[in-house]
Amino acid sequence: MASWKDNVRRVEPYVPGEQPKVQNIIKLNTNENPYPPAPGVEAALKAFASQDIDLLRKYPDPSASALIDTIAEYYGMDSDQVFVGVGSDDVLAMAFLTFFNSEKPILFPNISYSFYPVWAELYRIPYEKQPLTDDFKINPEDYYKDNGGVIFPNPNAPTALYMKLDAVEDIIRHNQDVVVIVDEAYIDFGGTSARDLVNKYENVLVVQTFSKSRSMAGMRIGYAFGSKALIKALNDVKFSFNSYTMNATSLVAGVEAVKDKEYFEEHCKMIVATRERAKERLTELGFTFPDSKANFIFAKQEKVPASVLFEELKKRNIFVRYFKQPVIDQYLRITIGTDDEMEQLFVALKEIIDGYSI
Amino acid sequence: MASWKDNVRRVEPYVPGEQPKVQNIIKLNTNENPYPPAPGVEAALKAFASQDIDLLRKYPDPSASALIDTIAEYYGMDSDQVFVGVGSDDVLAMAFLTFFNSEKPILFPNISYSFYPVWAELYRIPYEKQPLTDDFKINPEDYYKDNGGVIFPNPNAPTALYMKLDAVEDIIRHNQDVVVIVDEAYIDFGGTSARDLVNKYENVLVVQTFSKSRSMAGMRIGYAFGSKALIKALNDVKFSFNSYTMNATSLVAGVEAVKDKEYFEEHCKMIVATRERAKERLTELGFTFPDSKANFIFAKQEKVPASVLFEELKKRNIFVRYFKQPVIDQYLRITIGTDDEMEQLFVALKEIIDGYSI
Repeated sequence: MASWKDNVRRVEPYVPGEQPKVQNIIKLNTNENPYPPAPGVEAALKAFASQDIDLLRKYPDPSASALIDTIAEYYGMDSDQVFVGVGSDDVLAMAFLTFFNSEKPILFPNISYSFYPVWAELYRIPYEKQPLTDDFKINPEDYYKDNGGVIFPNPNAPTALYMKLDAVEDIIRHNQDVVVIVDEAYIDFGGTSARDLVNKYENVLVVQTFSKSRSMAGMRIGYAFGSKALIKALNDVKFSFNSYTMNATSLVAGVEAVKDKEYFEEHCKMIVATRERAKERLTELGFTFPDSKANFIFAKQEKVPASVLFEELKKRNIFVRYFKQPVIDQYLRITIGTDDEMEQLFVALKEIIDGYSI
Repeated sequence: MASWKDNVRRVEPYVPGEQPKVQNIIKLNTNENPYPPAPGVEAALKAFASQDIDLLRKYPDPSASALIDTIAEYYGMDSDQVFVGVGSDDVLAMAFLTFFNSEKPILFPNISYSFYPVWAELYRIPYEKQPLTDDFKINPEDYYKDNGGVIFPNPNAPTALYMKLDAVEDIIRHNQDVVVIVDEAYIDFGGTSARDLVNKYENVLVVQTFSKSRSMAGMRIGYAFGSKALIKALNDVKFSFNSYTMNATSLVAGVEAVKDKEYFEEHCKMIVATRERAKERLTELGFTFPDSKANFIFAKQEKVPASVLFEELKKRNIFVRYFKQPVIDQYLRITIGTDDEMEQLFVALKEIIDGYSI
C-alpha cells in the first residue's frame, strides 16, 4: 500500500436516506415537508435571477447578516445569539468540532440521530451511548454523570418522542460544566423549543433547521441559538473552516422563508393534523408506535416484519425508512406526507398486511 | 471562567477581504471576476424559480452527480476523479482533514494563501513554512525533505507568480509518500493546470474554483481532481461531515457555468488582456511586481508606502487588498477589474502618488 494512505483519516460515513431519481414516487423516507416553501421564496429567487444575477460574481456576505437578523427578529433573540450553516448537519458538525474537545466521553442516546457517532468518530471524540428506556424514552438521570458534552434531539429521531421542557432543563442543570446541544430539527410539529433557555444558561446550544418545517431541505439552511459566548466560539471555528458557507441564493430564499409566519404556522398545523389522522389509521392497521410530535411516525406492525413492509412498499413506489439495526429493526420510520399520499400508503399497507402469510 | 470553556477549540480565524455593503465602489480586493456569470446561469436560475421551486422541499442530490458529471466531461476526466464542495475553501478544508494526519509537519510556502496555517491550526496539523526566494519564487528543493503532506497554490497568492508544470511535477515526484495538493484557484488566467498529473500520480489533488474564472463566487462552488482512491477518501470524510453540501440552486447554476466554454474562454482572455495593459500602466506609475499569471497583480510603489495607497484609495471608494505582515507590507494586491475600473484606479493612483510627500 502506498504510504500516503497511512495518513488518510479512516471513517465510516453516514448514509442518508435514498433520493431516488425516478419520478412519480411517494417519498416518505427522509422527513421532507410535502408542501412547497412559502410563496415569497419563489418570488425572491425569481427577482434574484432577473435583477441580481451579477451579484453572483461577488462573494456573498460572509456574516450572512440578512438571514441572521431575520431569524433573530422572528424569534426575539439578539443577532449575536444566532449562527447559520449549510443545513443543521453543518451546524452540528461545527458544534462537535468547536465544543467537544474534552478527553471525557460525550453522551447521547443509543437510539438517536445516527450522525452523532459519525461526527464523533470523524473528530476522534470519545462518546458513550445512553440506553433509552424500553418505551424509547430518554432518562435524564443517565446524563447526570461526568462527561465531555451532551447532545440529544428533541423530539428524538427516529422515535419521534418528545421530551417536556422541564426534563430538558433538568439535563442542562446537571451539566453546567459542558456544552449541551438540543437538536430541535422537528420541534415545530408540536413541541416547545428550549430556545429561551439560552438566555438562562450560557452553555446551551439549540439547533434548528429549514429542512423540515420550512420546506427547504434543498436550500441547505440550518441555524443555532446560544449565548453570545457560544455563538462567538462557533463563528471562530466557522471562519477557520470556510468564510463563505451560505451562498447568495440561500441567503435571499432563507430570509423570505422566515418572514412568512402565517404560511409557516398553517402548514405545520396541516402536517400535525395529517399525523394525528395517521396515528388512528396505523392503529387500525395493527401498528403500535411511540407518540409522535414530529413530522414522522416510528411504527411497528404486529404481524408483518418491517423489512417485508419496507420492500413491498418500495415495489409499489412508496419509500419509507428502515433501519436494519438492533432493537429497532421491527420499526419503519414513516414521514408525514400529504393526506393523499398517506391514503395511498394506507391502501398499500392494508394490501401487504392482508396478503402476508408466514 | 465556566469550565465548559476548557473544551472549546481555540482558533485564530482567517479574515476574508472586506465585502463593503455600500454601493458604487470599485472592488478590487477579493479577486472576484468583473464580468457576470455565463448567460446560461441566469436562464437556469429563472427556470428553476419558475418551474422547480417545489424541488426545494426535497434534499438535493447528495452525490451532486449532475455537476460532477458536467465537470468531468468538460475536462475529460472520469466522474469518480472529481469532488465538489462549497467553494474551494470547503474542498481544501476537507482535504486537510482527510489527508494531513501525519505527525510530521506539512509544508507550504511562507508567503501564500493565508488560510493554510488556519486550517492546520484548526485540525492541529503540524506545519512548517518554506521561505520563497527573494524574488518570491517557490524553490522545489525546499519540498524534498521528509514531511506529512505538501500544499501550494499555482499561481501563488498573493504573489500571482506561476510555476511551470515541470517544477510542479518535480515537487510531486519527490513526495510520493504523502498527498500533494496543487491549489489552482487562478490557473485559468494563463497557467497550465496539473490536472493531467492526477492520472500519473495517485497522490495528487488538484483544486480549482468557480469563484474566479467562472464569475461565481456568490454561488460557492469548488472542485478537485484526483485519483479514484483520493476522491473516495475525500467523499468518505465529506459524508461523515454533511451529506448535502451543495444546494439545489448551486447544482443547476454550476452545470450551466461549466457548459458555456466559449463565454468562459472569451472572458478569461479579456481579463488577461486587461492585466497585461495594467502591467504597463503600473510600471509607468512606478510600481514593480512579480510577473502575474493570475487575475490580480501584487505590486509595490517605489515611493509611496502600500498602507498609504491602501487608505487613500479607500477614501476614493476603491478597495484593494493590503496585508500588514512582514516582507509583503509594501505590496498591494490589486484584482483585475474591467478596463474602465482599472482606468479609474490608475487615475486615483497617479493623484495619490503625485500628491505624496514624506
